[in-house]
Amino acid sequence: MGIPASKLPYTILYSFFYNSGFLQKNNNLEEKISSLKEKPSKDLLDNSDRDSRFRRTETDFSNLYPKMVRNQPCSSCWRWWIFSQTMSARPSTDPPKSWTFTTPTSCWRAWRVSTWNCLTNLSLWKQVRTKEDKGGKYDALCFRFTYEIAPVFVLMEQLTLRKMREIIGWPNGEGDGIFSPGGAISNMYSVMIARYKFFPEVKAKGMTAAPRLVLFTSEHSHYSIKKASAALGFGTENLILLSTDERGRVIPADLEAKVIDAKARGCVPMFVNATAGSTVYGAFDPIHEIADICEKYNMWLHVDGAWGGGLLMSRKHRHKLSGVERANSVTWNPHKMMGVPLQCSAILVRERGVLSGCNSMCAGYLFQPDKQYDVSYDTGDKAIQCGRHVDIFKFWLMWKAKGTVGFEQHIDKCLDLSHYLYTKIKDRQGYQMVFEGEPQHTNVCFWYLPPGIRGMPDGQEKRERLHKVAPRIKAMMMESGTTMVGYQPQGDKVNFFRMVISNPAATRSDIDFLTDEIERLGRDL
Amino acid sequence: MGIPASKLPYTILYSFFYNSGFLQKNNNLEEKISSLKEKPSKDLLDNSDRDSRFRRTETDFSNLYPKMVRNQPCSSCWRWWIFSQTMSARPSTDPPKSWTFTTPTSCWRAWRVSTWNCLTNLSLWKQVRTKEDKGGKYDALCFRFTYEIAPVFVLMEQLTLRKMREIIGWPNGEGDGIFSPGGAISNMYSVMIARYKFFPEVKAKGMTAAPRLVLFTSEHSHYSIKKASAALGFGTENLILLSTDERGRVIPADLEAKVIDAKARGCVPMFVNATAGSTVYGAFDPIHEIADICEKYNMWLHVDGAWGGGLLMSRKHRHKLSGVERANSVTWNPHKMMGVPLQCSAILVRERGVLSGCNSMCAGYLFQPDKQYDVSYDTGDKAIQCGRHVDIFKFWLMWKAKGTVGFEQHIDKCLDLSHYLYTKIKDRQGYQMVFEGEPQHTNVCFWYLPPGIRGMPDGQEKRERLHKVAPRIKAMMMESGTTMVGYQPQGDKVNFFRMVISNPAATRSDIDFLTDEIERLGRDL
Repeated sequence: MGIPASKLPYTILYSFFYNSGFLQKNNNLEEKISSLKEKPSKDLLDNSDRDSRFRRTETDFSNLYPKMVRNQPCSSCWRWWIFSQTMSARPSTDPPKSWTFTTPTSCWRAWRVSTWNCLTNLSLWKQVRTKEDKGGKYDALCFRFTYEIAPVFVLMEQLTLRKMREIIGWPNGEGDGIFSPGGAISNMYSVMIARYKFFPEVKAKGMTAAPRLVLFTSEHSHYSIKKASAALGFGTENLILLSTDERGRVIPADLEAKVIDAKARGCVPMFVNATAGSTVYGAFDPIHEIADICEKYNMWLHVDGAWGGGLLMSRKHRHKLSGVERANSVTWNPHKMMGVPLQCSAILVRERGVLSGCNSMCAGYLFQPDKQYDVSYDTGDKAIQCGRHVDIFKFWLMWKAKGTVGFEQHIDKCLDLSHYLYTKIKDRQGYQMVFEGEPQHTNVCFWYLPPGIRGMPDGQEKRERLHKVAPRIKAMMMESGTTMVGYQPQGDKVNFFRMVISNPAATRSDIDFLTDEIERLGRDL
Repeated sequence: MGIPASKLPYTILYSFFYNSGFLQKNNNLEEKISSLKEKPSKDLLDNSDRDSRFRRTETDFSNLYPKMVRNQPCSSCWRWWIFSQTMSARPSTDPPKSWTFTTPTSCWRAWRVSTWNCLTNLSLWKQVRTKEDKGGKYDALCFRFTYEIAPVFVLMEQLTLRKMREIIGWPNGEGDGIFSPGGAISNMYSVMIARYKFFPEVKAKGMTAAPRLVLFTSEHSHYSIKKASAALGFGTENLILLSTDERGRVIPADLEAKVIDAKARGCVPMFVNATAGSTVYGAFDPIHEIADICEKYNMWLHVDGAWGGGLLMSRKHRHKLSGVERANSVTWNPHKMMGVPLQCSAILVRERGVLSGCNSMCAGYLFQPDKQYDVSYDTGDKAIQCGRHVDIFKFWLMWKAKGTVGFEQHIDKCLDLSHYLYTKIKDRQGYQMVFEGEPQHTNVCFWYLPPGIRGMPDGQEKRERLHKVAPRIKAMMMESGTTMVGYQPQGDKVNFFRMVISNPAATRSDIDFLTDEIERLGRDL
């Protein structure tokens, strides 16, 4: 075997952290809180009533400032660290023959009284260890269904989901939720839960037991809503697309008109998806106005914040999701804007009980009522899956170490960079913005017009030539291997570039390089 | 920063492999083939026409015998290695400013002519590297939608799925498929695809466009089929449960009778799930007889081989899935019996086109027809997901290193161990088997009767006492921390133990320890 796998990670772990100064950060709670007070964000809006969300947290998420992580925002060190930790907890050639079971109550108690600096307190890792029973294998990276198999991950997931619900603004973080394999599946959950809420009989009797149900979403929304409509038996024709303004935001009056029209046609409007951060424009639908209509017509309001949900972590930008606390469910993907490695997506539900009511099947082989602990911690039956990948662990670690404020800085930096790009090109020769005004998210959408096109009169010929510019520049970028930026058409708009920034390791000089490359490669088109 | 993250993994990697003898295995192809010939499996059945599947492989999966991996079948070293490799390919503090795009055609060509010993040839790793463009982040552990973002993983997935289809027995490995986040989602895909095949109009118009459809599955099948019926709008009442024989295998005559009955009630029988390796008994439904009925009544045949699919890798045991090549779709979870870390599940489809027809929505922002490469490699639109976790990579590496024959030995060893347990307890005092005869899979189901119960006359009192034995012993096991084994009731059978072996690192002495513990803890119950 050579070096036992179990020995290596410890070596690496310690050399890594001692060399990086990671373990030197051993402040007590008071020091951490005072360091928080000394470092207010420079760009705070006056939303002091929201600030409490950034401090009031029973898990001290917001108090941690590991130096290395703050200075190295890319995810590579994270992945490395998490992996080392997991590996170091694994038995190898000589697996321990015993393990200790802790009931949910004792486990909570132990966690609550600890100082919660997981970077210096390794007791967490001792809990997250592989249990090798005689013959069977339970794996620290597998997330089975029940508390007894994944006690630490079950509690981590519960605590983190509560924290996310608190940040959304639901009182005391109450509600429900689960981590799913991605935003598309989270959105699919929201449609399923809404259907169960209004027509629970569909679970047993199928869609024929319900009237003709219709769903609403923006024409700019992510296509996963359409996929869900097809998969769940609604049919894509019963997903009604809402018109948007010039910036890609749903026009509330259009929603109301279409709801009234659908009712007149004998359909039952059931579900509205409001997008918080649309895929192409990065637009935020006006949630308050949409929520008013949902309340008026008794429809489920889902907010697809897969892309824009991360902005809830930023005191400067969270106002863009104003009204999200009125949603019945929210999709929020930490693996997008917050830089958590894929996959990490949560579906959060305001009302308790509907998620498990919708999905539970109470399989006898997993959910025995005669276990010796509180089986309400066997949370797996809420899912449409059985065994699940452990998506919570990396997110938990990242949050513990960066803190809420670390995520805030990450997000603010990305938005600053996109602001820099927007400011740079909005009046620059050869560039034309796809929509007017500052982008709401980091999506900067623009055309580049090579010199040969600039002087042409507007018309079909110019459109046709412009339509080919972005694909050609992108192909040249890929051939020269210098950079890559996406493009697409949208509605009647010909192909345009869409620059999206989610990596805070990017710099202004990277942005400058991008525009230089576009101009260099596009010069002669 | 201390030690840059990018430097560490290389150090570890080399010390790890040089010390383990990993890199010493540098045979050429002829040597490897002759070593294969010298080491025939001891327990070969006479199924020589199938043996070709174990040798005929354009990727040489079967020719690799890294010593360490063979001697260390647990997954920890794997995870470690894969991670090191990925990390070593990541840029860190000094990201390279360029990357090379390779078209699918050239990438295939380069791969095909190589010797394919990925353990000694590191060129693969050079391809699987992170591309940091100016501002955007593309991550080696993220599996986005399109070839340009994940070229190596897209091709790996295609090649591996083809190999799996070959092993199933579909001519030339033709067909389609995708890796999904788990067996439950793979099974859900199968129902969606079947519905699309027979009633494609449901995609646009919803379930009301179809007649009343019914699905069939064993009363012993995994509850994910029931979850899929609820989620997809069929309704659990339209999932008809099939009776099984004493061993938990579907009775084909019962299927036919229920199909006839459903038709008489005006329903349209559409889909049959045959389980290959049921959750509790490990039973294999008789696929050939079920396929005959599916052909006769024009129904989709799905084989849920989430648990039992791994046996296809074993020449000794694959006959238990005889007829699987007649299925329209197959779920096969390498993360179960084959020891690949969770999540790794494939849905495989015999007919090309239905999977993408069912799910594609052709989002303009991802699938531009004017890209400079063959966009048929942009495979993501087949999925109900958008971005996907890279589940293929670990499986690919494991297969490359262990070889098909390595998986075969892994599986044969687990089945040997369960045979040992079965043989040991079937006539032992105090034990009673739940069903007669040798288990088909590694599930050994039994009651332990403490001495105080053994002499009791059969009847309700004895049943009630016996029902409490397994929960009590399991609770004591968890308290004493020595081992853990699951239990459940099934139908009218009171709680019994279900010992399942999927870890080939287990030994006969582990099995002995298990029975000793059961007897020690249960003595006075």
